[in-house]
Amino acid sequence: MEITLADIARKVGGELRGEPQKRIRNAAPFDQATSEDITFAGSAKFLKKLNLTKAGAVFIPGSSLSGDALTATQNLIVVEHPQVAFARILNIFYPSSKPAIGISQKAAIGKNFTSGLDVSIAPFVAIGNDVKIGTRVCLHPHVVIEDHVVIGNDTEIFPNVTIHKCSEIGAHVIIQSGTVIGSDGFGYATDGNQYIKIRHTGIVQIDDDVEIGACNTIDRATFGKTWIQQGVKTDNFVHIAHNVTVGANTVFAALVGVSGSTTIGRNVIVAGQVGVSDHLKIGNGAILGPQSGIAQSVGKGQVVSGSPEMPHRLWLRVQRIIPRLPLLRKKLSAIEKKVNKIENKLGLSHD
Amino acid sequence: MEITLADIARKVGGELRGEPQKRIRNAAPFDQATSEDITFAGSAKFLKKLNLTKAGAVFIPGSSLSGDALTATQNLIVVEHPQVAFARILNIFYPSSKPAIGISQKAAIGKNFTSGLDVSIAPFVAIGNDVKIGTRVCLHPHVVIEDHVVIGNDTEIFPNVTIHKCSEIGAHVIIQSGTVIGSDGFGYATDGNQYIKIRHTGIVQIDDDVEIGACNTIDRATFGKTWIQQGVKTDNFVHIAHNVTVGANTVFAALVGVSGSTTIGRNVIVAGQVGVSDHLKIGNGAILGPQSGIAQSVGKGQVVSGSPEMPHRLWLRVQRIIPRLPLLRKKLSAIEKKVNKIENKLGLSHD
Amino acid sequence: MEITLADIARKVGGELRGEPQKRIRNAAPFDQATSEDITFAGSAKFLKKLNLTKAGAVFIPGSSLSGDALTATQNLIVVEHPQVAFARILNIFYPSSKPAIGISQKAAIGKNFTSGLDVSIAPFVAIGNDVKIGTRVCLHPHVVIEDHVVIGNDTEIFPNVTIHKCSEIGAHVIIQSGTVIGSDGFGYATDGNQYIKIRHTGIVQIDDDVEIGACNTIDRATFGKTWIQQGVKTDNFVHIAHNVTVGANTVFAALVGVSGSTTIGRNVIVAGQVGVSDHLKIGNGAILGPQSGIAQSVGKGQVVSGSPEMPHRLWLRVQRIIPRLPLLRKKLSAIEKKVNKIENKLGLSHD
Repeated sequence: MEITLADIARKVGGELRGEPQKRIRNAAPFDQATSEDITFAGSAKFLKKLNLTKAGAVFIPGSSLSGDALTATQNLIVVEHPQVAFARILNIFYPSSKPAIGISQKAAIGKNFTSGLDVSIAPFVAIGNDVKIGTRVCLHPHVVIEDHVVIGNDTEIFPNVTIHKCSEIGAHVIIQSGTVIGSDGFGYATDGNQYIKIRHTGIVQIDDDVEIGACNTIDRATFGKTWIQQGVKTDNFVHIAHNVTVGANTVFAALVGVSGSTTIGRNVIVAGQVGVSDHLKIGNGAILGPQSGIAQSVGKGQVVSGSPEMPHRLWLRVQRIIPRLPLLRKKLSAIEKKVNKIENKLGLSHD
Repeated sequence: MEITLADIARKVGGELRGEPQKRIRNAAPFDQATSEDITFAGSAKFLKKLNLTKAGAVFIPGSSLSGDALTATQNLIVVEHPQVAFARILNIFYPSSKPAIGISQKAAIGKNFTSGLDVSIAPFVAIGNDVKIGTRVCLHPHVVIEDHVVIGNDTEIFPNVTIHKCSEIGAHVIIQSGTVIGSDGFGYATDGNQYIKIRHTGIVQIDDDVEIGACNTIDRATFGKTWIQQGVKTDNFVHIAHNVTVGANTVFAALVGVSGSTTIGRNVIVAGQVGVSDHLKIGNGAILGPQSGIAQSVGKGQVVSGSPEMPHRLWLRVQRIIPRLPLLRKKLSAIEKKVNKIENKLGLSHD
Repeated sequence: MEITLADIARKVGGELRGEPQKRIRNAAPFDQATSEDITFAGSAKFLKKLNLTKAGAVFIPGSSLSGDALTATQNLIVVEHPQVAFARILNIFYPSSKPAIGISQKAAIGKNFTSGLDVSIAPFVAIGNDVKIGTRVCLHPHVVIEDHVVIGNDTEIFPNVTIHKCSEIGAHVIIQSGTVIGSDGFGYATDGNQYIKIRHTGIVQIDDDVEIGACNTIDRATFGKTWIQQGVKTDNFVHIAHNVTVGANTVFAALVGVSGSTTIGRNVIVAGQVGVSDHLKIGNGAILGPQSGIAQSVGKGQVVSGSPEMPHRLWLRVQRIIPRLPLLRKKLSAIEKKVNKIENKLGLSHD
């Protein structure tokens, strides 16, 4: 496959500075690109070495035009977000390879199944009763869909995923392999010794454009719903407990746990191995640093780190001191001795 | 469905203070309940605002009778543990919806399969040889049961669970989706360079009334057994290594790892993202705080936090100081200067 | 089954000190072995109590010959690595019980499937197109193999594992239940608000003799490959992100996350719940302590602990001080008062 630079510029809404008829055959990373590839320079680090890439063309940001890029001799396409443009063109060179359309004879489909056009249902998919799926939905082998689940258009669910009863999955959603949606939350009543299971009557709702990573668990609500809003992306091994709400375009790195009834705002960034306590509110745009343990609510736009969490800037200062604690203790002892000596000299008592 | 308050009080062994013939149609949370719902007030927080719920009736604890509850005008049912009573009534309004009884034609069943009455085996369940399951056992789609597994009465195993060979699962056990029981432990002999696998000859034994969350891994023993005792409950992503014993009614929050040969007592509470080192003993009733790293054995009833762990009260004091370390260091420097000045004044040497 | 000590010594290349015709029926742990079992004493701890085991024979290291072992009256087999010898003999008494050879009628096999001799493909295995597997490969129930996957000889893949398209799996590899190989990495381009998925065009390559634990996720590369080299062993819940390389004979305990494009050397030991940041280099033979958060590259052979990491020895000293911070602060306040008193006495100002 080949596309001209003029076509590429048009597809991404960019401004071409170079040869319109130049043919591009692939998209590749900055260091590996050849003269038939297009790449991108998204940061100052790459813009500075623009002459070093062998790429046939480079997406650059408009903000860079006054700098190094101007002196480069390559074909450039000026866009607002070079990596976004690159991701879009990558999709053209590597179109999604969905399985064949149709419902496998080896799938098991329950009663009252409703399906849009052009769906793909692989062998060993097990679908319960009263399930409704949209157009072009793709269910890979070994997906289990329980009763009363609804799935929107163009959603793709990878192997060995389980969607429990009554879950509502939006359109253009991707759910990677091994994930469990709608398992019972961790809720028990106790008599002080034994634990009695609390029936979970609620559901999980996942809105449009969400991508859930591999081996996630998103538990159903005790009452009401656990709610993953539009555009959320999760890495692998993310645990979302019952009755959590996650706002639009929030992202989670791997091995994160969010406890019950916590509300996370929009455009939050949750780093790897973070734990968030229950019944908290995390404000829009907050950033939770790696391995942080969030014990209190976090305000809008705040950046926190540590376990328990503190403002990230304070945490940076604290972390510079922690390895010097042995020195500090030594210094404290030295001062103590001096003070005792002075007290002796002055005839003061050591109280 | 409707039940009178008199019937509800009888079912939970409570004392009704209100209208015996009042009909209740559902159970709901305190803030959402309507006049046809029953709710509960388990803590002082809710007892104080008892007049604010619109519930048709409220479970309250006997211990509250001298306080606010007495002045409430609602229908009250006095019980020892309001949340337990609530959980029991919830089960009546939301009975478990198990799949149809019978063995699917699309399941694969090995030789010498023994089964109690009224079992439910879904499509694509794969059962090995010499497996024995009890009465009313429910195996959801895509459960894999290897050879020589025994499962007790009324146990329910959700989709995509794997039970490896020779595992012994008790009665009234729930295993949520994606969990692996009886995988080989992480045991290798090393020649200093390569690692040679140590055959795991032991099993996993899970006793009655246990509930294992979604995507757990409980490894088989090297020799003997990994043992989960009666009434244990685990949240999602809990890893129990080879030869661990977990005592009755112990609970684990999500993303916890317990290393090999550790013994955990009864009624222990393990918070989220805790790591427990190998060959330790955790005493009955201990509490391990969130994200703690347990490097030494913990005594009966102890509450510990931190990584490595320390007594929780000490940890609380330490955590108040950590963010003040920059101030403490500044103070130390100031004192140092003063002492040097004093030494100068007194003609003392700075050694 | 019975083997003579002479035979055992020959099989492990050891030197027998005892009865060549003594018959051994099993291998067992030091404390549980009977007179028909063989066991091993790998460390000084066990060598000291050699006379306490009831085992019929004991593997001991050559290095111990000048010590306690010489005075023992048991049958001894002197080897370089006792636990390795024990692991080898254990394999004889407990041979791997692979499922029957053959391809189940209940499996779904795609086009252009190529297979070596004596493979075992269980019910409900789903294999895509253009898949090639070696001799004696064993695919347990519910394994999903997508298109263009290649698997080497003698590899065994346990239930509910998903191997995504184009993955290359070596020979003598073990992949435990629930694991996902080749899911898309967590890579998105952002316009500052929404996240746009970056197509992952790379693969996962797993070399010979690797064992992947239960419920791992190893993501495919954005470009190129995510590469797990020969002899690597992972415990459960290990997350390896896109474009990571892991060197030969490196081991990971449970619940570890390695971020994108990080390179880990050979013979590294990664303890439980460690998080490794992206684009780092971890040198050969490094050791990353439990729950450590690795924020910077780690040199060859370095041992680090803490979050963020520091040299392990420094961390040990710091950890002894952390619980004493309340005392240190009290001491600092006391000194401060004394100094103020001295200043007063000397007529110095408190600036």
